[in-house]
Amino acid sequence: MGTNEPKGQLKEETLDPVDWVEFGTFAHKLLDEAIGYARLIRQRRVWRGVPEHVRTALREAAPEEPQGAESAYEDFRRLVLPYTYANVHPRAWGWVIGVGTPQGILHETLAAAINCNVFGAEQSPVYVEEQVLSWFKQKLGYSPQASGILVSGASTANLIGLAVARAAMVGNAAVRKGLQSLDKPVALYCSEEAHNSLAKAATLLGLGTNSLRRIAVDNKFRISIPDLLSRISHDRQIGCTPLCVVGNAGTVNTGAIDDLQELAAICERERLWFHVDGAFGALLKLSPSLAPLVSGLERADSVAFDLHKWMHMPYDAACILTRHAEQHRSAFSSAASYLEKHSRGIGSGNTLFAEYGIETSRPFRALKIWLALKENGFARYARIIEQNVAQAQSLAEKITEHPELRLLSSNLNIVCFQYAPPGFAESRLSELNRELLFRLHESGKAAPSYTTLDGRFAIRVAITNHRTTTEDIKLLVEEVARIGAQLAILE
Amino acid sequence: MGTNEPKGQLKEETLDPVDWVEFGTFAHKLLDEAIGYARLIRQRRVWRGVPEHVRTALREAAPEEPQGAESAYEDFRRLVLPYTYANVHPRAWGWVIGVGTPQGILHETLAAAINCNVFGAEQSPVYVEEQVLSWFKQKLGYSPQASGILVSGASTANLIGLAVARAAMVGNAAVRKGLQSLDKPVALYCSEEAHNSLAKAATLLGLGTNSLRRIAVDNKFRISIPDLLSRISHDRQIGCTPLCVVGNAGTVNTGAIDDLQELAAICERERLWFHVDGAFGALLKLSPSLAPLVSGLERADSVAFDLHKWMHMPYDAACILTRHAEQHRSAFSSAASYLEKHSRGIGSGNTLFAEYGIETSRPFRALKIWLALKENGFARYARIIEQNVAQAQSLAEKITEHPELRLLSSNLNIVCFQYAPPGFAESRLSELNRELLFRLHESGKAAPSYTTLDGRFAIRVAITNHRTTTEDIKLLVEEVARIGAQLAILE
Repeated sequence: MGTNEPKGQLKEETLDPVDWVEFGTFAHKLLDEAIGYARLIRQRRVWRGVPEHVRTALREAAPEEPQGAESAYEDFRRLVLPYTYANVHPRAWGWVIGVGTPQGILHETLAAAINCNVFGAEQSPVYVEEQVLSWFKQKLGYSPQASGILVSGASTANLIGLAVARAAMVGNAAVRKGLQSLDKPVALYCSEEAHNSLAKAATLLGLGTNSLRRIAVDNKFRISIPDLLSRISHDRQIGCTPLCVVGNAGTVNTGAIDDLQELAAICERERLWFHVDGAFGALLKLSPSLAPLVSGLERADSVAFDLHKWMHMPYDAACILTRHAEQHRSAFSSAASYLEKHSRGIGSGNTLFAEYGIETSRPFRALKIWLALKENGFARYARIIEQNVAQAQSLAEKITEHPELRLLSSNLNIVCFQYAPPGFAESRLSELNRELLFRLHESGKAAPSYTTLDGRFAIRVAITNHRTTTEDIKLLVEEVARIGAQLAILE
Repeated sequence: MGTNEPKGQLKEETLDPVDWVEFGTFAHKLLDEAIGYARLIRQRRVWRGVPEHVRTALREAAPEEPQGAESAYEDFRRLVLPYTYANVHPRAWGWVIGVGTPQGILHETLAAAINCNVFGAEQSPVYVEEQVLSWFKQKLGYSPQASGILVSGASTANLIGLAVARAAMVGNAAVRKGLQSLDKPVALYCSEEAHNSLAKAATLLGLGTNSLRRIAVDNKFRISIPDLLSRISHDRQIGCTPLCVVGNAGTVNTGAIDDLQELAAICERERLWFHVDGAFGALLKLSPSLAPLVSGLERADSVAFDLHKWMHMPYDAACILTRHAEQHRSAFSSAASYLEKHSRGIGSGNTLFAEYGIETSRPFRALKIWLALKENGFARYARIIEQNVAQAQSLAEKITEHPELRLLSSNLNIVCFQYAPPGFAESRLSELNRELLFRLHESGKAAPSYTTLDGRFAIRVAITNHRTTTEDIKLLVEEVARIGAQLAILE
């Protein structure tokens, strides 16, 4: 590097546009395209494969010199845009993925302009995040003294919940010394249908993948209470320390909701931490008519839920709440002179979010949530959730009524089914339905995903989609029956 | 919930605008404001306190009914915008925070419109992320076979790096069984100046906060190699298993860079994992003139670095790379039927990013990076980094030349100093400088942060700012001297 003085302001370079007027013109053109994408999404395909020539282009070496904005965007339009899984489409029903909103486009535009780092410090974004957290405490039945933090997804929220559970249950001394210092193995409990982020969390926390006991489910895919009780009792007998039970408020496979009241009662009696994975199901609390389905969630010591699924916030946005603010903080805080709290100035903020989670630098996730909730009000989200549940129920009814379709499960917003014409060999149904789903994807008309239930390949429709209409549901049933009939004839 | 059929398309509700033309008009107005904020940022204050009436307004209860977009944005302009720490300002030099770019505003606009979930699946965003990763492998001297993933910040990247180190060093069997199964305690090594995310990571991983040995630093704040060696040797003697050494490429306090070549050699000899925390310093690799400062980084088993700091990507964006793809994957993968890989259709993607990190749902972080790198080319970022380093050096020179200022440290882009007029009692300098910094913050003219070096309160200037000019540096020196003189007279 040069040892000379910089040559003065004129020679200095920034990443700002040289010509702001030209930049503005380009920006408005792009905004029109972004909005147009959302507005006309119904005319696009939900999915198409990524062609080989696109894959090749996306293997080019690092760009040393500028290509310019126009040209880079042209590449985006040519190589990226046509080949996404268009989860903003009204017939995108794969996994559990939210749609986002046109409003969200503007919220992210604003957030990028101010580009705040919400690690802490005395600044308005900290108060905005605290307000958003307080709203969810209120809606989920938590006290104002509960703690919480916005994170990138429910997987991280589950990890944080279990980290707090670990610290609370084994004590800070053991956490400081390391888990080798424990004299007994520990155990956590969840159902076989629980999300795989829980196994990842148990592993990451050093508790061991095997410490997570996966309890069998009943015929509604809910954790078996007798099996859970006998496993806890067995673990105590063999000298293992039970720490925590994880309840599901909406499993990813089938939308099953464990008996949360019963789990809460067990945890109180057995003195275990009660964590709820409510990735999408926790939000049933917003709806007066659906809230009873997750009754007991408000008794959980911690709850994880996404806001980019059933709240349709742009990716990413999720939340963890705990009833135990001090234990939450002590599980993540660690002193640093560069983060010391001061009495005045920027360093005088009371809340250091870095003490409540994994991240130090943190984006202003709260902004899009705050703006969307103020714009729409909670009641509107509740109605959309109710609508999706009604649509799933309507789909299940159509499947039941259809002579060639077989319902495998239907719960909440998730329906699993097969094309199963009378007389078709049971042993070949999984293969048939797999091919059917491939063809449906390749048609670009609708995109359910898939899972395996009781050994059967299932077409899986998860409706977390504010754009889905009853007509879309009807079209799905027709397409599945049409493709299925073609395939069955070929047999 | 109702058991009736939905009432047909007309009665169904979406979160889309009722009137797209009106929405578009509003959107363009907002975009102008967002761009105007960036363009005119120099005229704003870097910081002001959050007034009590704003805090009160940000404690209002959850909004049940819609407030409407115009009114919500009015609240944003009134309650949020004036009271952020404006880290996009040319004189924002607190902590290590990037500025973002006007281009980044457009990139986030596009990302929100397509709202992709890049967990995996066969879709272009996966290939875009792989391309971005391959570019950084290339620039940092990693082989194409290395693995990596984009994450929300270097703290998460450090956690992932140490998780892979743990799995590689203690073996997957122990990870499955839990760390209680280890027969010996373990040890990790970093300097006293290392970032506190490393202590958080060691704690979270169950290795224990105490397992992280914080080795003393030399007079340039670099890890003391003799102390490191003797501690490793001592640990082996007391029956403790050394796992990993963490090298710093740019410490947060002073920008110190450990001797990475020496650390790499020690790790090879001692058979330890070598992780580098290169939050901002790893990017020195982009500059031919500065790259020698981080020589040896290319030998690390894993490296963590941010892209929202010295690459000015909008928050959040960071990266972890490892040389050990299989060990990386085995540390995070866990089977799930709903994520099974298929031969065709959406589920046929080769890369399941969920197997390389904590997140399952993941935002399309790669898009803004891909577009910005194509638009600007890597060379432009290298020049901005060089410029910041030159500006810091120029600041250090001005401080050295100034009779009332005392340089405490100067390294890379970080300068720590004090106002220390001749004859002023040493014991009262920390208090004086603290007050000085409060007043500088309250003036809204410039925002350095602070730290403590050798017991002295330091004004700390970290220039990761593409908008900073030499004039800004000059203004800082003048303001500090002016406020300092006022305060010293009051004594």
